[in-house]
Amino acid sequence: MNTQWVSDGPETTPGDIEEPGLDGPFVIGVDLGGTKILARAIDPATGAASGRIKRMTPAGPSVVLDSLVEAIQDLPGWEQAEGVGLGVPGFVTKDGVVTSCPNIKGWDEPVAVSAELGSRLGMNVVVANDVDCGAVAEQRFGAGRGVDDLLAVFVGTGVGGGLVLDGQLVIGDRGLVGEIGHVTVEPGGRPCGCGGRGHLEAYAGRAGINREVRRRHEKSPQLLVDLAGEGSIKSRHIARGIADEDDTTIEMMAEAAAALALVIGNAATLLDLPRVILGGGVVDKLGQPFIDQIAQSDRFGGFGADLVDLVPADRLDDAGAVGAAMIAVDRL
Amino acid sequence: MNTQWVSDGPETTPGDIEEPGLDGPFVIGVDLGGTKILARAIDPATGAASGRIKRMTPAGPSVVLDSLVEAIQDLPGWEQAEGVGLGVPGFVTKDGVVTSCPNIKGWDEPVAVSAELGSRLGMNVVVANDVDCGAVAEQRFGAGRGVDDLLAVFVGTGVGGGLVLDGQLVIGDRGLVGEIGHVTVEPGGRPCGCGGRGHLEAYAGRAGINREVRRRHEKSPQLLVDLAGEGSIKSRHIARGIADEDDTTIEMMAEAAAALALVIGNAATLLDLPRVILGGGVVDKLGQPFIDQIAQSDRFGGFGADLVDLVPADRLDDAGAVGAAMIAVDRL
Repeated sequence: MNTQWVSDGPETTPGDIEEPGLDGPFVIGVDLGGTKILARAIDPATGAASGRIKRMTPAGPSVVLDSLVEAIQDLPGWEQAEGVGLGVPGFVTKDGVVTSCPNIKGWDEPVAVSAELGSRLGMNVVVANDVDCGAVAEQRFGAGRGVDDLLAVFVGTGVGGGLVLDGQLVIGDRGLVGEIGHVTVEPGGRPCGCGGRGHLEAYAGRAGINREVRRRHEKSPQLLVDLAGEGSIKSRHIARGIADEDDTTIEMMAEAAAALALVIGNAATLLDLPRVILGGGVVDKLGQPFIDQIAQSDRFGGFGADLVDLVPADRLDDAGAVGAAMIAVDRL
Repeated sequence: MNTQWVSDGPETTPGDIEEPGLDGPFVIGVDLGGTKILARAIDPATGAASGRIKRMTPAGPSVVLDSLVEAIQDLPGWEQAEGVGLGVPGFVTKDGVVTSCPNIKGWDEPVAVSAELGSRLGMNVVVANDVDCGAVAEQRFGAGRGVDDLLAVFVGTGVGGGLVLDGQLVIGDRGLVGEIGHVTVEPGGRPCGCGGRGHLEAYAGRAGINREVRRRHEKSPQLLVDLAGEGSIKSRHIARGIADEDDTTIEMMAEAAAALALVIGNAATLLDLPRVILGGGVVDKLGQPFIDQIAQSDRFGGFGADLVDLVPADRLDDAGAVGAAMIAVDRL
């Protein structure tokens, strides 16, 4: 149970209601993850959810589409839904073509997911990026309540962002809006997973930190590598490194905070954002001290930290499914 | 006569029609500048203008408001207008309060221009920032035709920007959207006119260039200072410095191009912009070679220059008045 939903939200408790089903109109929200599929029925007014169907995510887009259809059709009363919102871990164009989905095996080329699923289900299907779904869920029911303009920044393996302006998700014609992980903080700087250099993600994302720490490990032994072993460095390893006052960990996270401060301040200045929400595994694990480190950085970009509040994400239950449903409601 | 309006635009020629007046519905577009006021009647469908009333801009907001009312009421048939759009050289909130107007003498505190003018004229008055008016005019009738998402960047004494997403001007609750001149390119870098450091404007704006060149002049004589004398360095002095292969001028404009490339690339990546329009005195004077220098910079931010086309502004006649009218149409 997630208490944020209850604290000062509506009487109904999104994500927690199992059965009986919703009485009024509902939209189906589906979260397609790298390992699992979750489908729920969402009340568009409150974000309250009923029904809960889970599936493993198979390999290859055509089998994934089969599993999505099955999961949706297993929801009690699915035929009465006003439509479907689907969040996917990839790039999505405005018309629902998923151009790439690197975290799902075998998904190597563009698939017209919205058209295909819509035709098989006989209802409108709106497809959105999973980070965007998280941003919309936070704006409607989480840490973004009360403001119409916000950027949600999720710091995990990579760094993703979702932008809401005037209460509406902004995605752009190519669906690339919010690619804050690939904003340049240091021209010619650290190599980024995308092939570029000096991008935010290379400094603040776990994959970038992992690469940099292992590079240093070749010269001198690193605690984070000892903790992670052969696997990737996890957020808990970083938290442990900070607790143990490990020099490299402290230095790397200071660089991460400085990079985030520069990019967030610049985005807030360019877009007049009153609030930026910070979430994702790294932020969740390091908590408020890391957010404070960002807000107090002397590298904070633009007009500075006075312009914008940095707040932690509420980490809503099933935010992906709830956000996907709300995006669908806006576009249906 | 401005040929851009005619080249491949509508049959009617915005900005050129004097009399007789427009036949159909029209909106009054007013451009309040630091030295003059211009009021015109604008056809919302084509941007075609008729009537042309000019006034000197007096000092102090209450006298300015009197002059605005006079200029508008001198337009033939002004009572039939559907409303007024007014562009001002200052910060404007969403509800038409001009919070500051540094280029107009005596305008030292917030004035509710929209409410005040609206009450005196008996019609709706929409107030917008002049740079935003220029951006909207370019998007509707100039270099932005054909795309729904664009950023217009005007490089003059300072650096201003106007953002159009999904065909609509974005301004933010505080009216600060587009403050690209104060995006940080170099934390702790050159002092900016706003009191900050390392902002784009300090590298690419004429005032920043003027400050930096005069600082260098204290150590060694500078051609740009010889050309400008006691006055500020003008765009034509910069053009002359480049033509004369002056080392400092070339170095300063390379830094300006690099700073613009970093910020424009990052903005295009964050906002998925297919096109950025470049205008303002510096760009107008230096022309395509300067735009090419920006596009080809190795400091181009984010996903790089492949993501976005950089194009020169069309420099439309009376763009301020036309843009103000179009913004009014969208909000009336």
